Amino acid sequence: VGAPVFQSDRIYESTPPGVIMGLAWTSMGGSSLYIESVLESSLTPKSQPHLSKTGQLGDVMKESTSIAYTFAKSLMATRFPKNKFFEKARVHLHCPAGATPKDGPSAGVTMVTSMVSLALNRPVSSNIAMTGEITVTGRVLKIGGLKEKTIAAKRSKIDTILFPKDNLSDWEELPDHIKEGMTGIPVEYYEDVYKVCFPDVSKEDAENVW
Amino acid sequence: VGAPVFQSDRIYESTPPGVIMGLAWTSMGGSSLYIESVLESSLTPKSQPHLSKTGQLGDVMKESTSIAYTFAKSLMATRFPKNKFFEKARVHLHCPAGATPKDGPSAGVTMVTSMVSLALNRPVSSNIAMTGEITVTGRVLKIGGLKEKTIAAKRSKIDTILFPKDNLSDWEELPDHIKEGMTGIPVEYYEDVYKVCFPDVSKEDAENVW
Amino acid sequence: VGAPVFQSDRIYESTPPGVIMGLAWTSMGGSSLYIESVLESSLTPKSQPHLSKTGQLGDVMKESTSIAYTFAKSLMATRFPKNKFFEKARVHLHCPAGATPKDGPSAGVTMVTSMVSLALNRPVSSNIAMTGEITVTGRVLKIGGLKEKTIAAKRSKIDTILFPKDNLSDWEELPDHIKEGMTGIPVEYYEDVYKVCFPDVSKEDAENVW
Repeated sequence: VGAPVFQSDRIYESTPPGVIMGLAWTSMGGSSLYIESVLESSLTPKSQPHLSKTGQLGDVMKESTSIAYTFAKSLMATRFPKNKFFEKARVHLHCPAGATPKDGPSAGVTMVTSMVSLALNRPVSSNIAMTGEITVTGRVLKIGGLKEKTIAAKRSKIDTILFPKDNLSDWEELPDHIKEGMTGIPVEYYEDVYKVCFPDVSKEDAENVW
Repeated sequence: VGAPVFQSDRIYESTPPGVIMGLAWTSMGGSSLYIESVLESSLTPKSQPHLSKTGQLGDVMKESTSIAYTFAKSLMATRFPKNKFFEKARVHLHCPAGATPKDGPSAGVTMVTSMVSLALNRPVSSNIAMTGEITVTGRVLKIGGLKEKTIAAKRSKIDTILFPKDNLSDWEELPDHIKEGMTGIPVEYYEDVYKVCFPDVSKEDAENVW
Repeated sequence: VGAPVFQSDRIYESTPPGVIMGLAWTSMGGSSLYIESVLESSLTPKSQPHLSKTGQLGDVMKESTSIAYTFAKSLMATRFPKNKFFEKARVHLHCPAGATPKDGPSAGVTMVTSMVSLALNRPVSSNIAMTGEITVTGRVLKIGGLKEKTIAAKRSKIDTILFPKDNLSDWEELPDHIKEGMTGIPVEYYEDVYKVCFPDVSKEDAENVW
């Protein structure tokens, strides 16, 4: 935990709608891991929904993308039934860098947030990073490497980190010098993530985006 | 059968429609294994039926999903012909955790129940867990590891376990301290599962869900 | 040929339409092998024909399913031109048990019978088992392991076994204690199978099923 730890791997100063910072963890330590969702082609009355995935994603992470897509669609359909984004949109989800193989389920909540952010055409605060596996019903499951991820978030100038409630004891065991200046928010269901990331979205706004 | 055995791996206190607890068995012992089915996008007059599968399912388990899908559709078509759910629904079946490879046919009855629960928009009691291979006609076939699965169910606070009738002798041989507080229900056809899981569904209710 | 030989692997006491007992043969001996065909979704004016296959079928057996499907369709079109089942039906053919890999062409006649039984919505007597490769014109070809298959049929309480006429000498060489209580019927064309399995189907009945 020396000097290079606080070197940022942040590639966005402020993030546009659809871009969310997740956190990865390898044997080499933690790092930020952006999820980017964009609209592939413009929405037309005839366009058909589709999801493309790039970024050298492994099998688990590809499935995780599908799970996130399903959950994001159901969240929008439930909350904002008149927002027809996902009925028409060709979404392309990319996870830079393009040559780095990535795998694992722990970017699930980040993917959901990326897609919901795009569907609402709203950016999420670029001071927030998050980690957590998502199930298809929106339950957030435990992840590994919370310590390394928190360090990575910190060096990327993040001040708020969302992590699975099932990792709460890991959070509590982190040394104070790591947690200093960081707000940790445990999340059990995606609902908890939504409230933090999209605090002021009115139904009217959300249903008149596209 | 020491202390950690009764540590729960239950991720849902109460389960929404479409979420059912199955039971898995590995060389490391038994564990609960949820099957989650959700609607991927809202039902519209133009929507086309589809089934997606995620959860690092092996070949046998993927086929098992198709078999369960076919049987769930035929059950609904036979019992509740006016329930048009499966003629329109894009169903996404997921089996968390997303990074754990899973295989084998013994989640068949759990998958059927998950899909029927979704089609009826009815939760199943979260005190029930089940295991059994399903054939495409609804016959429930023998599984392995009933002892380990029963222990797993018990530590997940399950009080009712459905298992294949062909495993009845395995059940009878289980020590009393394992079966204590558990009701074991042998099932030969899916019909037997249906009666336990959906005891009070009227035809009228079932046909006016969606 | 000791005691366990007569232990039944029969999973159906009586078989519904679409379920037929075939016979398999491995280095470990013979066993019954059910072929189950069901309708995946109800017939509607707009439904499109399709065939799904499950049961860990090898390449040869998958091709065999396609051959059987073609022949079953041509049989129905020739005999009962007003029966439009195969023009609309999504058929799902499964071969339990789901985790057991299976291969080889010798379930051909069983597959045809399963599909024809479904198309006619008529069960076949559950005392009949059969084995034989089918060609796309309905010719029944020689199979291996008739002795082991006959023993398996017997222990499953079958009293009538249909086998390829090209295996007649194998049948004649079987010891009397195996054949005792069994009727062996050599078949050369599928026509011969049809007569035994569907003895009393009138054209009128067959054309007014669906």
